Amino acid sequence: MDLPSSVVISEEGPREGFQIEPGPIATADKIALIDALSACGLRRIQIASFVNPKHVPGWADAEAVIEGFTPREGVEYSALWFNERGLQRALAVREKLTLTGFISLSASEPFAIRNLNRDRAGQIEAMRKYVRVHREAGVPIAKIIVMAAFGCNFAGDVSPAEVVETVSDARAIARDAGVEVQDVTLADSMGWATPRRVADAIGAVRESFDDLRIALHLHDTRGQGIACAYEGLRLGVTAFDAAVAGLGGCPFAGQPGAPGNIATEELALLCEEMGIATGLNIEALIEAGRLAERIVGHRLPSAALRSGTLAAFRRRAA
Amino acid sequence: MDLPSSVVISEEGPREGFQIEPGPIATADKIALIDALSACGLRRIQIASFVNPKHVPGWADAEAVIEGFTPREGVEYSALWFNERGLQRALAVREKLTLTGFISLSASEPFAIRNLNRDRAGQIEAMRKYVRVHREAGVPIAKIIVMAAFGCNFAGDVSPAEVVETVSDARAIARDAGVEVQDVTLADSMGWATPRRVADAIGAVRESFDDLRIALHLHDTRGQGIACAYEGLRLGVTAFDAAVAGLGGCPFAGQPGAPGNIATEELALLCEEMGIATGLNIEALIEAGRLAERIVGHRLPSAALRSGTLAAFRRRAA
Repeated sequence: MDLPSSVVISEEGPREGFQIEPGPIATADKIALIDALSACGLRRIQIASFVNPKHVPGWADAEAVIEGFTPREGVEYSALWFNERGLQRALAVREKLTLTGFISLSASEPFAIRNLNRDRAGQIEAMRKYVRVHREAGVPIAKIIVMAAFGCNFAGDVSPAEVVETVSDARAIARDAGVEVQDVTLADSMGWATPRRVADAIGAVRESFDDLRIALHLHDTRGQGIACAYEGLRLGVTAFDAAVAGLGGCPFAGQPGAPGNIATEELALLCEEMGIATGLNIEALIEAGRLAERIVGHRLPSAALRSGTLAAFRRRAA
Repeated sequence: MDLPSSVVISEEGPREGFQIEPGPIATADKIALIDALSACGLRRIQIASFVNPKHVPGWADAEAVIEGFTPREGVEYSALWFNERGLQRALAVREKLTLTGFISLSASEPFAIRNLNRDRAGQIEAMRKYVRVHREAGVPIAKIIVMAAFGCNFAGDVSPAEVVETVSDARAIARDAGVEVQDVTLADSMGWATPRRVADAIGAVRESFDDLRIALHLHDTRGQGIACAYEGLRLGVTAFDAAVAGLGGCPFAGQPGAPGNIATEELALLCEEMGIATGLNIEALIEAGRLAERIVGHRLPSAALRSGTLAAFRRRAA
């Protein structure tokens, strides 16, 4: 079995999770979860979203969260924004953040229309402006994100050819702006991925762009997330997004109650138990996941929160 | 991608699920779930357990359940028992059941001691008697079951060599009784399997016994179940146990609240979305899973119950 020797798992729980939860989450609770996650060995944590508080009231306190958390040496803290106003808010608190922009395009036009009120041309135009604004502000464009890369609740199946086309669009935007981008994240925004679709999309992107590194952002909407992550590992993918306890989900997918991102501690368990180093402390992640459950006030999807790691049982058995 | 063209998924939800639920489940509710499952395209459903009502009060009504359900043409209904008393109870209602016995051994001796109060020699002796009693009653021995085939909460790791040794013990029991057994189920009783362990155990068993067909009985205790099932499919396994909605779990694993078996509808979704025929109606399974949730009175682990099938979204998108 030819698997990578190590992977990097980027934590998106705070940003994704607190965006979708219906109830107001106290700023202090958000800070407590970020600080708990900082102690888990993570190298990248996305901690806030600079979005319009009218649309996403759960992130009205982004500045207060960033002011309040305690950064840990060696951890990159990032935030998300979609427009110039968001960028300006991020720039105002940049001393505690690693600021990077993304060229983010949906491979499904119906999803982009529903989610962002933009068709394909509108997405491209918006991203050209986004890249220009970031260049002017001196903020690097770190990667391409292909949303709805494996299928879409509003369009149905998304083909590998559509993914390649979307990556092409993004590279054209980058090239025209004089930006070099080496990383692409294929995001299963609505839980359509299967291992076969993961293999097909990765194969098609690699065939068309042999200089791009592929990362996976998987949702567990239909319980297939960890199998898709495993297929990614088999194909040599070494960068994954995940969310502690399975926090999050896509607010635009129209499936309330469905699980969100694959759970960080379950992905770490998969990797570590197959000899793939993650640098993560799974037991600390499980404790952080239990804290997340107390904060949101309901059960989160992760099975590992209930069962614990195998390491703990090995210690007891020994 | 070289995957099987079809698989058989055996439903164990009624038997496994109603055994582990703490509250009393009405006989009529058990019957309603079995009848709902009969309409899902399943070919095999395990519907009851003839165990000592003092130890498993949830199955004191096994006879009443079997009397009450409506068998469907083409579906095999089975039950489980562990001793002669259970066999006698099953024989008394045999007209509605397909009666078969199993040579069931734990690959972990500490689990057998904890679960059955038997060491390795004690297990073998008990199984020799069990096979003899079944032969005398004219009930065939259908398969070997290796419990704790991938690891054990009480023993830690279980090696492929221990699995092979356990299968050897079982084959010796069969051979000495003049019984031919062609099927072996590797059961992840406590959720220790990873795709790598699945591959290693299957490889070792195939190398030692090239005439045995391997089935997988996977639990999702730590969220790895569907990845392990996918690895089984990759390796050509075509027989799986599962439980609608993820009902069940191992009552002896000491992990209350952890998920049980992999969910039938999620495994069916994995297969069908990769072009592997299951014969199952996933939407009917999801409805049966929602019925199971109403019966047990709490949320069950399956993500697909929340999100539905992709087929439904394809229809809406078209």
